[in-house]
Parts: sequence; C-alpha cells; structure tokens
Amino acid sequence: MSSTITENQITDTQAYCQQLADKAYAASRSLSGVASQQRIDALNAIATRIEASAEFLKSENAKDLAAGEANGLSSAMLDRLKIDDTRIASIAGSVREIASQTDPLGQIIEGRVLPNGLKLSKVRVPLGVVLIIFESRPNVTSDAAVLCIKSGNATILRGGKEAIHSNNALAQCVRGGLEDAGINPDVVQLVQTTDRAAVGALLKMDNRIDLAIPRGGKSLIKAVVEQAHIPVIKHYTGNCHVYVDNVCDEQMAIDICINAKTQRTGVCNATETILLHKDVVASGLGKKICDALIAKGVEIRGDASIAKLNDKIKAATPQDWDEEYLDMIVAMKTVDSLADAATHINDHGSRHTDAIVTNDVNHADQFVQSVDTANTFVNCSTRFSDGGEYGLGAEIGISTDKLHARGPMGAADLTTYKWVIYGNGQVRG
Amino acid sequence: MSSTITENQITDTQAYCQQLADKAYAASRSLSGVASQQRIDALNAIATRIEASAEFLKSENAKDLAAGEANGLSSAMLDRLKIDDTRIASIAGSVREIASQTDPLGQIIEGRVLPNGLKLSKVRVPLGVVLIIFESRPNVTSDAAVLCIKSGNATILRGGKEAIHSNNALAQCVRGGLEDAGINPDVVQLVQTTDRAAVGALLKMDNRIDLAIPRGGKSLIKAVVEQAHIPVIKHYTGNCHVYVDNVCDEQMAIDICINAKTQRTGVCNATETILLHKDVVASGLGKKICDALIAKGVEIRGDASIAKLNDKIKAATPQDWDEEYLDMIVAMKTVDSLADAATHINDHGSRHTDAIVTNDVNHADQFVQSVDTANTFVNCSTRFSDGGEYGLGAEIGISTDKLHARGPMGAADLTTYKWVIYGNGQVRG
Repeated sequence: MSSTITENQITDTQAYCQQLADKAYAASRSLSGVASQQRIDALNAIATRIEASAEFLKSENAKDLAAGEANGLSSAMLDRLKIDDTRIASIAGSVREIASQTDPLGQIIEGRVLPNGLKLSKVRVPLGVVLIIFESRPNVTSDAAVLCIKSGNATILRGGKEAIHSNNALAQCVRGGLEDAGINPDVVQLVQTTDRAAVGALLKMDNRIDLAIPRGGKSLIKAVVEQAHIPVIKHYTGNCHVYVDNVCDEQMAIDICINAKTQRTGVCNATETILLHKDVVASGLGKKICDALIAKGVEIRGDASIAKLNDKIKAATPQDWDEEYLDMIVAMKTVDSLADAATHINDHGSRHTDAIVTNDVNHADQFVQSVDTANTFVNCSTRFSDGGEYGLGAEIGISTDKLHARGPMGAADLTTYKWVIYGNGQVRG
Repeated sequence: MSSTITENQITDTQAYCQQLADKAYAASRSLSGVASQQRIDALNAIATRIEASAEFLKSENAKDLAAGEANGLSSAMLDRLKIDDTRIASIAGSVREIASQTDPLGQIIEGRVLPNGLKLSKVRVPLGVVLIIFESRPNVTSDAAVLCIKSGNATILRGGKEAIHSNNALAQCVRGGLEDAGINPDVVQLVQTTDRAAVGALLKMDNRIDLAIPRGGKSLIKAVVEQAHIPVIKHYTGNCHVYVDNVCDEQMAIDICINAKTQRTGVCNATETILLHKDVVASGLGKKICDALIAKGVEIRGDASIAKLNDKIKAATPQDWDEEYLDMIVAMKTVDSLADAATHINDHGSRHTDAIVTNDVNHADQFVQSVDTANTFVNCSTRFSDGGEYGLGAEIGISTDKLHARGPMGAADLTTYKWVIYGNGQVRG
C-alpha cells in the first residue's frame, strides 16, 4: 500500500497543496488510458479491502469517536461519525453497486454525419480533477472517491478534522484497491493537513482542478464559493414544500404531510413548509393535517387562518417562510390558489424539492410547469429526492444550482463531453 | 410596438437595472405557460419584421457607422458593425432556421418507473433569465434573443455602445414579433444605458438572473467573471492546434494546415500552432508545409529544427506557444511523439479545437482520448468547430468551460432540467 504523508511532515501548506494538485492532474491524465473493466476491477478491489479492513476501520474510527467525546460533540454528531459492522457492509455494498453500473464514459450523447461527410459525435468524457470538501460523515470519503473513479476523474478529498483517522483508513482502502487494479493511487488523495489555508489554496488552482463540490452546511458552502477560482456545484438549503390542493385525496394528503415532515427531520429533502389551499382549510382537512402533525410532536407555525385550527399552533412570522428547520417544526400557510402556491414556492423555496397533492390532472401539470425546482413531485413525499431512490447509485450531492447538474448527482454528473469529428481531409470553403 | 425607455430618462442605474431584472424574471415566469407553437410563431413574426424593417435598420445602422467613422473605428470594426441587405437577409434566415428546429423544451432526457411505482422523468426546462453581454456585432442582438426565445428564457441584452442604434432597431423588431404572437415583450430587453455600472449591477442580481454569457475579447470576459455573483459561461481564447502525425497523407496535411491557418485568421477556430512529428520534419513534408504557408503570406515562428527549413522562418520564443495571433502568423514546433503532441496541447492549448492529421487508426484514437479539448478533430480543418457547421443553428457562443456546456452552444444549451415524479401516495419507509 502506498505510503501517506502525515500531517507533521507538512510545513508549507501552499507547496503541499500544489504538489497534491499536480499529482492529481497527472493521475487524471493517466486515467485516459484506463479501460472501463480496469476501473470496475479497482472498485471491486476497494470493496474487498473495505470488508477485509473492518477491524482496522473500527479501531481508527474509535480514535475519532474518543476525540469527539472529549471535545463534547453532540450525540447526533457522534452517531454520524461512527463506523460499525453494519455501516462497513453498507459502504462496501455501495461501492459494488457503483462498480456494476453502466459506465458513463464514452457514451455518445448525440451524433450525425454532416452534409460535408464529417462524422460528428458528442462523447461523454471525465471532467478531470474534482475537489470534494466535506464535513463529518466518513462514508463520504469512499462514496466520493468511488464515484470519481467510476467517472474517470482524479479527486482530492478534504474531510472534517473530527473524522481524520476514519477518513485516512478508508482512503487507504481506496488507494490500495486502485493499486490492486494497476491504477495510479494518486487518482484519490486525501488532504493530510488540517490547516484551513489548504482549502483556500486548492480552490485557486484553476489550471489543475476542474470542479469543487462542498458537502456540508451553508457556512461551508458560502466560504467555498467566496474563495473559489474554479467552478463550484452548490447544495444550499432544502426549504421543501408540500402544497395540498383543493382537489385531493384526504388520507393521501395527511400521509404525505406526515411523512415529508417527520420521517426524518435532519435531512435536506424533509418538508419545511406546508401550503394549504383555502378550501382545504375551510373543509376541515386542514384541521386533520394539523392535528395529525401535532399528534406526532410537530410544532406548527401557521398564518392567522391556520392558527385557528388548533390551540397549539404558534403564529408564523415572515422569517418562517424562508426557514430550513431540520427539526420537528413546520411552517403552514393558506393560499388562495395553485398559482399563489407556485409563487410562494418560487419566492421562498430553495429550488430543491416541492410536491403537490392533487387528484386533478390539470392542476398536477400546472404545478409541474410553474414551480421552478430541481425535483417536482405529484402525490408523493418530498423524502424521495435522493440519488439512491432515483437509481443513480450513491450520490455525490444534490445540486440546487441550475447549471451543469440539478438535483441528485450520480457518476454521470461528474463528466463533461467533447465533440469528436472524423473526416477524410475536409477543409472549410 | 412597445415603447422603449431612452437613455436620457435613466437617472439611477442601479434602480433601472433592478427594474429590468424584475421585468425579465416576471417575463420568464410567464413563458412557462407559452406553448411551443406560440414561440415558433413569435420567431417567424420576428423574421418578417426584420425583413420589413430593412430601410429602418439600415438608416439606424448608418447613425452608428457615422459615429464610428468620426471616432476613428478601424475598417475591420466598421465592417463588423455594418448592416446591409445581404446581412438583413442572413439575420432573418437565421431566425427562421432556429424557429424550424426541434423544441428543446419538454424533452425527456431519461425516465423510468422506480421499484415503488413512482414514475420518474428528467425533463428539459428553461434556465430562466439569461444576461448576454456583447461587443460590436449587432446581429448578436437578434441571434441571442432568438435562441433565448426558442429555449423559453427571458434575456437581458447589453450590447456595445458603438452599435446602440442598430441594436435598438433590431430589438424593436424582436419585441414587436413577440407582441405579434401574444407574448410579453419583456422576454427580450436591451439595456438602454451605456453606464458601465449597469453590467456590474446586473451581474450581482443572482435572485433574478440565472446565467451570464459574455461575448467578446478576453478583457471583457475577465471583467465579467470578476464581478459576477451569477454563473458565467466563458469563451476564452482559441489557441487551436494541428498536429501532423508521422503516418499521414502529405497533401491532406498541407491542405489542412493551410486551411486551418489562413482561410479566416481573425476567428477563434483558426489554428495558431502547428505541431510536426520529428519524422515529418526529417522526411521533407515539414518543409513542404512551411513553404506552402509562406507562399500564402504566413509568418512562421518555429523551433530550431523548423527554422532550418526556410530562411523566412523566425525563431519562436516560449510565449509563442501560448499566443492567439488572430493573424497571418503561426507557431510551429517539432515533437518526438504523439504523446508529446498531446502534452503540448494540454499544457498550452485553450481547450477549444485541436486536430490530428494521420492515416493510423490507433494514433487517431490515442489523440482523441488524450487531448483534453472541446473539439477534437481527425483529418479535417479546425475551422469546422462552429454551431452552424454542427447543425445547432445559430450559436450563443463556444464554451471553453467544461461545466454545463462545452464547445459550440445552441438553444438546448440554454436549458436545465427538472426531475419530475408522478406517484399515487407513496411515502418513504
């Protein structure tokens, strides 16, 4: 297994980062000669190494957990950090699943013979070098590395300080698996310094790194965007909505509101605002939805007409419409029409995931057309917007940008294309 | 025809730009209800208005030409600025061609039924509001507006000061055509102030404008990138290469080098550096290529072994490998191998268009795989990288970025997608 620079050997962060980036660039170039099967072999070797390294992974993880406890990390944070046998099996399974997916590279997106006989094709190729900056969860190390390998990219991973031992242990499995398959291990490099200046330095190396993807809270993403000279794909907040239309199935509306808000609250595709058509409030369905949410322990912050439905409902303030609670709290608002619902979502949503519950096919269509969001759902919970659910395998993130990739991003979203032309001597007249 | 604010009415640039952006945002929302045929009708109406307004367009253009002459614009600049009957026919023809293209909107890029019965589709939708910042050529006004209308986007156009009357006249035809088809004319707005602060103000309105595309020289693009808070698709320099392989057809090599360098020099897909395999230099083909270029009036700047081929060849300096001459000048270099050619192109090229001349199928494949460029050509002139040649209709530009769109960009590249799911009550377990 390749040796790794340890932090106490790094004295010059800028020079270290330049070296990392140069190695990643060279490794990405070397990948252009690596066939699909060799990348698949590497991924399977990585899965095997992760499984075989269970004890090592757990003992390295134990160091992070001990440090985390000593530093007073919350139990939720410690839970995200933890690697146990179930999670190791899940990580290795995810690697094998990505290995088995269709190779995105070489796909001919479109092609034709031009009138002058030139054979034109638009072929999917890797981006080059991808920088992933992430916070606590160590499984991002393997997920991100593996998606980059699948898509033919070199990657530089910068994980959170609190997971450094776990990330290093997983990165060793990944680099070992690359070597097993005869691929340059510098295809995946984990930044070995916790110096914050490393992120700023890497984000400026636009002649070496093609894309940055920050995965974490709003402040991390904001800091990355402000420093970057390279393109960044962003995943800002998930202020998701369910709109309950005046023409709908009552039980479905209740079930979807409950699931979208409460099935898991700390995630970006949980619903934060429920919009009720005024007839839904008037008919009594509004009260049933509120009562069911309250029975589940949800705090409702409603407008004046919703506040009348249950004594426990608090008055919403204008800030509530823009809030991502990530908690058992929901904002609720009455709207006069579907068009008003769409306007509210376009004005206050984060273009992540928004759903309508309706039995009217024209209302469904109007909602899908008029709401500007990455994931537009009819009659299902917002919780389904997820790369795994969509069949993309592990996801590299969920983009709330509109350029390049939108919504859940899989391996194919880490590619670009080139226009290839084969001619037989054509010149332009 | 809708009235237009004239510059002398604008006293507060920031407020004026905010108003423009708000109107563009509202207009883009209103487009979600406009069917494909209505957009086609608008485009045909625009073409008809352009043809019917020939005298008006020429008389407004005459004002710009007179001012340009008074301000000492070069004859090349004045030529780019000029609108005559031939150009009017060409502009209108281009509008009708875009009208007749397949609608990119609503295209289902992929789709499937998920195991839980959810019907997932990835549907092409407009970006929203696109800001185009361009220099002298007035036909960009109609080309850009029309590509944005085709792709369902609202657009804000900021043209060069020297073409203001011509741009305004064309924009009137465009807005009139939109009205003829019952579409809000604010879908296309031309910035009516020449205050430079307007560009900076618009580039910061990330809650109203989704994309900026600067079309012009390097300094314009750099200024836009530095000020922008919104995504920018860039078209930097075109430092294009022809590599003449050791296994090639001699006449084809000569013809392609001549065409790529001399057929039109002031354009981004003209070749700026020719790389010769060392055997090509040794065999005498190198001398034939140099002599042919010199006979056409090209100044060659060559490395030491190339300089020996003809007395008129000047010595190249390292800067020559990075130069975009846009003139009858070419840099020439000897390389030891195809791999060296690829490395030179990857290190010095601008990822625009690069070609190999070879008769060896494996060399062709290796070149296509290893050169990281938007347009990779085998046995044809670099001059073919062009949206019109590719069948995209008029192009909104040629991207040298890797994210979102690469190479020539047509109407479809002004779109994003949304993931749409239809369910029947599914919740996540």
